[in-house]
Amino acid sequence: MSQATMSGVVNGVDVERLGVTVQTVQQDPTRASYRFRAANRWIDGGHNRSTIQSFYGDGQEDTGRRTPFVLDADEPPVLLGKDQGANPVEYVLHALAACLTTSLVYHAAARGIKVESVESRLEGDLDLRGFLGISDQVRKGYQSVQANVIIKSDASPEQLKELTKFSPVYDILSNPVPVSIHIESR
Amino acid sequence: MSQATMSGVVNGVDVERLGVTVQTVQQDPTRASYRFRAANRWIDGGHNRSTIQSFYGDGQEDTGRRTPFVLDADEPPVLLGKDQGANPVEYVLHALAACLTTSLVYHAAARGIKVESVESRLEGDLDLRGFLGISDQVRKGYQSVQANVIIKSDASPEQLKELTKFSPVYDILSNPVPVSIHIESR
Repeated sequence: MSQATMSGVVNGVDVERLGVTVQTVQQDPTRASYRFRAANRWIDGGHNRSTIQSFYGDGQEDTGRRTPFVLDADEPPVLLGKDQGANPVEYVLHALAACLTTSLVYHAAARGIKVESVESRLEGDLDLRGFLGISDQVRKGYQSVQANVIIKSDASPEQLKELTKFSPVYDILSNPVPVSIHIESR
Repeated sequence: MSQATMSGVVNGVDVERLGVTVQTVQQDPTRASYRFRAANRWIDGGHNRSTIQSFYGDGQEDTGRRTPFVLDADEPPVLLGKDQGANPVEYVLHALAACLTTSLVYHAAARGIKVESVESRLEGDLDLRGFLGISDQVRKGYQSVQANVIIKSDASPEQLKELTKFSPVYDILSNPVPVSIHIESR
């Protein structure tokens, strides 16, 4: 991001503070290291609950959230659950939609591009044979994801599309993330 | 999944119905095709909201959810938001935690392995220089994710770990998913 023209609040984003953030991590890259966390507890069947609260970032532990965010996940009845929450792969679509929007809004703000509205519809295609272990030829996760985004703004669709590419969740889906799983049995 | 020994309810999962699901998609793979959806609307700054309701699966449109799940995403103040919800990459950790747990619980049930409790703590490391576009050498999404899972069960940690590998979200993070983004400007 160039902070040359950053001033005031654009799209609800304080671009002066955004400029300070950019300068800070340019001068001291350790301030760019963030560690986010979630704790989850199984309830029953497909129902489980996460709490999300503290994280590390900007060189320190961030304990500013007084209460945790509490998120329930479950499966619909056709997948043997009781619909106590969206299911895990639906949460992935929410994460991607939210991230495309925020990335677009923040990077537009940094460039002085005013955005009036952003709406998106996402779809993900999944073949249940992967999860069920019926076929090794079928992947377990989404085979593809489609995002349709409608934006009211003066900028061109091509320019706006480039801004969504800064999205961390877009990168997380598009490219492999090393995931290490440690299991302790009691 | 082998349905040879499936009977009753194990870990809150109706394993007879699970066996029927397996037989159904083995006989008619079109019944395995699912399409999940999320609609998102930007509110202000880092704040946006998704609604999740209908999906396609088991050969038909599923409209069983009378009200949508409503999910707010935002950023914490240090990332210029107002903490109106977990942020997008935190939602990814929730999705993964929920999916590892559900995959383990369902596949354990199918094998007659009783699970008493599952708790997990996930962490994801992210270098903000990627999102900010400060360095092309730094990826935008998580550089790595660690999941620590504590399970009360008679099965061995090695056996339980194998069951988590059926997780669709684990696959989504570990392997590339083709994401197509279509932007319409109004």
